[in-house]
Formats: sequence, structure tokens, C-alpha cells
Amino acid sequence: MAIIGFSRTNQMGVSAIVGLGNKADIDEDDLLTFFEQDDNTQVIAMHVEDLKDGRAFAEVAQRVTKKKPVVVLKAGRTSMGARAARSHTGALAGDDQIYDDILRQSGVIRAMSLNDMLEYARGLQILPAPRGENVLILTGAGGSGVLLSDACVDNGLTLMTMPDDLDAAFREYIPPFGASGNPVDITGGEPPTTYRNTIRLALEDERVHALILGYWHTIITPPMVFAELLSEEIERARQVGIDKPVVASLVGDVEVEDAARHLMEHDILAYPYEAEKPVAVLGAKYRWARQAGLI
Amino acid sequence: MAIIGFSRTNQMGVSAIVGLGNKADIDEDDLLTFFEQDDNTQVIAMHVEDLKDGRAFAEVAQRVTKKKPVVVLKAGRTSMGARAARSHTGALAGDDQIYDDILRQSGVIRAMSLNDMLEYARGLQILPAPRGENVLILTGAGGSGVLLSDACVDNGLTLMTMPDDLDAAFREYIPPFGASGNPVDITGGEPPTTYRNTIRLALEDERVHALILGYWHTIITPPMVFAELLSEEIERARQVGIDKPVVASLVGDVEVEDAARHLMEHDILAYPYEAEKPVAVLGAKYRWARQAGLI
Repeated sequence: MAIIGFSRTNQMGVSAIVGLGNKADIDEDDLLTFFEQDDNTQVIAMHVEDLKDGRAFAEVAQRVTKKKPVVVLKAGRTSMGARAARSHTGALAGDDQIYDDILRQSGVIRAMSLNDMLEYARGLQILPAPRGENVLILTGAGGSGVLLSDACVDNGLTLMTMPDDLDAAFREYIPPFGASGNPVDITGGEPPTTYRNTIRLALEDERVHALILGYWHTIITPPMVFAELLSEEIERARQVGIDKPVVASLVGDVEVEDAARHLMEHDILAYPYEAEKPVAVLGAKYRWARQAGLI
Repeated sequence: MAIIGFSRTNQMGVSAIVGLGNKADIDEDDLLTFFEQDDNTQVIAMHVEDLKDGRAFAEVAQRVTKKKPVVVLKAGRTSMGARAARSHTGALAGDDQIYDDILRQSGVIRAMSLNDMLEYARGLQILPAPRGENVLILTGAGGSGVLLSDACVDNGLTLMTMPDDLDAAFREYIPPFGASGNPVDITGGEPPTTYRNTIRLALEDERVHALILGYWHTIITPPMVFAELLSEEIERARQVGIDKPVVASLVGDVEVEDAARHLMEHDILAYPYEAEKPVAVLGAKYRWARQAGLI
């Protein structure tokens, strides 16, 4: 039921919703096999209380996840959750350490909450696959840069070691008291041109494989101005064949909600009042790309 | 900046916002001392990259947290985050294990993300303090009950062991294939009366100290009908002096967003498309109540 409201509000495409019930006949690996071949399905998200046949699941999932991301929300992780699962579907939710091992070996992306499952299902469809491990943070607020850096570590992302020439190129655009290195901190008083120039530089440099933006509300570059210039720059890059994953954390007054909506409509993952969520979705995309052998 | 937009959108009262800069003069414990005495402040939320004087902070915080919850988002938790903090404010973000120990001893509630800090700051103001450890989950969907049970364990909450007489009382209202025990699963085909009766029972029974509701969208009890009956029952209970923490997870079509808004306007914490977040906020309230010696 959560898929219905979430997908309508967030314009997430849904090819099918299947309720497996008590799995007397069809089970998880049957459905993985089916959706593996369904061209209308880009991402498979599963909410399970148990896996009927762990070995078969791992075997099929290892193959399917090479082609499409599979997100799994495993309910009944804890003793109390497992007890509730037993009385709900009769599921033997079992030892979570064993499930964690099976899921890891299967190459699936494990979501630890309902909302993460939904956000991963949406975000994995939107983000292009990264071509390498170099992640760059570009921020208008040093404080956001710190939170975003923490989130990168939490999600297994690698902050690119900044090459000297690229560092020098960023310095051309940012004030002397801005921080170069990674995060690039353009500081909080910059006009739209600085955002545009630094975003373009990050998009065009082939050594940067993914971009995390920390937007911080200022009068000189208001939220919608930022959103419009970012979507223009990404559109411009896409037209010349550059398509890297870009996510944005938007911090500010209520206008950042409109800015997030504008960016989402242009297939750029952006969240208001969040620092860690966009990085978590990017992290999920990276986990998949590694599993699929793309990087 | 995130406080501004978040508080306007979510009608969270804000008594003051203070930016400490590089803390050359006033630091964290000075502000804790100030806001301890400010009657207009119910909750203190802090975003810090370091603590200038850990010992003084712990001493003051131990006293203040007896009166008011203090939420701390510590940025620079990781090696990469700490490096970014150094270039941002010159903060020596330091070993996170040490910070974690200091924060734990100080009795503060540690938020692990920007959004959690904001949600705790809002939720801790709204939720009344619990009078004991017995948490009850009441759900229209067994699947929600499992996720909510997991979240209880994750957040240090205790699922009440259901007394036989209360179990029998719930059974009077729910179908024979519903699950009694805790979670109470009223099942997904029940009319508004069943929700009303079971909610009233949980509110009126003194052994139940906090209530987690898992709403699942059905045609027979649509989201707004549920929201209205829940707010009526809580209003009714408040009038006779019953005021327990109640949080709700709402799963369904987009109407659950209106239902969440209605509940929030009646000081009931409700989140659409989320299972774990309402439980996390309740868990924060419990951590505070224990620290303050209320339970």
C-alpha cells in the first residue's frame, strides 16, 4: 500500500505490485526470474518476512542483480520482529546474521527501513550508473560538507583525492577563504555564476564520477535559481554525452521544497532538510554498480 | 537554515537560533545554561563539529537534561567528516568513540542525521512523557506490525507483555483470525468502530504507557476517517487526564498525507510512508524520560 501513495506523490513509475501471501506456490525466486526478463522493470524492490528457499534465492539473485538492482527490506530482523512475523504470516524470520549473509552474497541492496526501500526503488531508476569511485562534494556551506562527508563514509563512498590541476581550476572560481580539496566549499555568499562554473567544471572533468551538492539558502542565489541552473547544466552535459549521478541536499527556508520538486522533475535526486538521504541513495547505486561489474 | 524551512512547514515552534561560529567567546555550555532557564524553550537541539570543553559540557548537560531534552547532531563522526570539519571551522572533531562516551554520559539524545535532529526537536516537544516502559503496537496490517516491532528493538523500546485480561478485552473487538498479543493486529478489513474501540481500550488501560499505531489504507476505514477518530479519541482521553505518547505510521494512497497533516495539527506524531521514523522519535522521548528520572 505504501508503494501506491509514495509513487503517485513522487512520480515513480511502477510496472507491477505482487503480493506473495504465504508463498504456497510462487515464491521470491520465481518472481525475480519473471521480472529479470520484463523490459518494463528497471528495479525490483522486495519486502519479505522470510525467504522460502535461501539457496535458490541467492542463485537467482546473483544472476538478476548483474542486470537490475534488487532492493530487499527484510522484516523480522529482531527477536520481537521475528515473533510478530510468526504470528502474521507464519514466517520463520530466523537469525538475521544468516539473512544478512545470504542477502550480501546475493548481491541485493538491503534497505533497513520502509522509506529507504521506497527511496532506493525510486532513486536507482533515476540515477545513471557511475563509471568509477571518485565522488566529489560541492557545497555552499562548510557545515553541510561535513555532514555529507560523514554520510559518504557511512555509505561506502570514496571522496576523490583532488588532483592539483583540478583544485587550481576550482580555486579560480571560489573566494580565497573558501575551502578547496574535497569537499569543495564555495562558501555562502556566492552568486549563481559561481555555482554554475563549479558545477560545470565538476560535470566536465572525467575524473569526477559522481557529484553530491550541498545547497545552502542565500539571498544572492535563492533555491529556485540554484535548481534552475543545476538542471540546465545537467541538461547541457547530457546533450554532450556526460551523464553522471548527481544528488543534492537542500537546506534553507520553505522555497527549498519547490527547488527539490523542480530538480526531481528533471531527474535529479534532491531532498529538502536532509543531508544523509541523498548520499544513501547514491551509495545504493554504487553498491549495485559494483555488484554488476560496472566499476 | 534547515530549521527555518522545516519549522515553517511543520509548524514547529522555535524560541531562538544561535550560531556559535568559532566559539572564541561563548560556547556550548554557556548556551545550555541560558536555555535551561528560558521558559520559552522546551527542547534544545545542537549541531556541533566539536565541543570546546567536553568536561564542562558533560557537567552542565547532565543537569539540564534532567529538565529539558537536549538533542545533539555531532558532525565529523568519520575520518572524512573530521577532515572536512577541520577545513570548515578548524574544529578538532576528534575520535568519535570519545564523543559518543561524553554524549552518553551527558544524557543527551544523539541524532545521527540532520533530519533526525529536526524530527526529534519537533517530536520531543509534542509527545508527553511516558509513565512507564510498556509500549503497545496496534495495527491494521500484520506487515506493519513486524516492521514496527523491529523498530522498537532498534530504539530500545519494550513491547509490553500482554496481560491475559487485556488480551481477552482486545479479542472482543477483533476478528478470530486477527493476532492478539503485542502487536495487536486488528487485520485489514475492519470498520472504524474496531479502530475506535481498540484505541480507546489501549488509551484507557493504565498498564499501557505508550501507543504505536500502524494504519493501513482500506476502503472501509479510509485515512481521514482513521485520522479523525484517532484525534477524537485522544482528545477525549486528554479531557479525563490521560495523556500518553501516541505515534502513527501511515501506509496507503496519497490520502495518508492529508491524514498525517490532520494528526500533526492535533499534536499526534504521524508520518506517511514511514514505519521506523515515528518509533525513532518515541524512542528519543523514552531515552530522555529515563535520563530525567521520570521512569
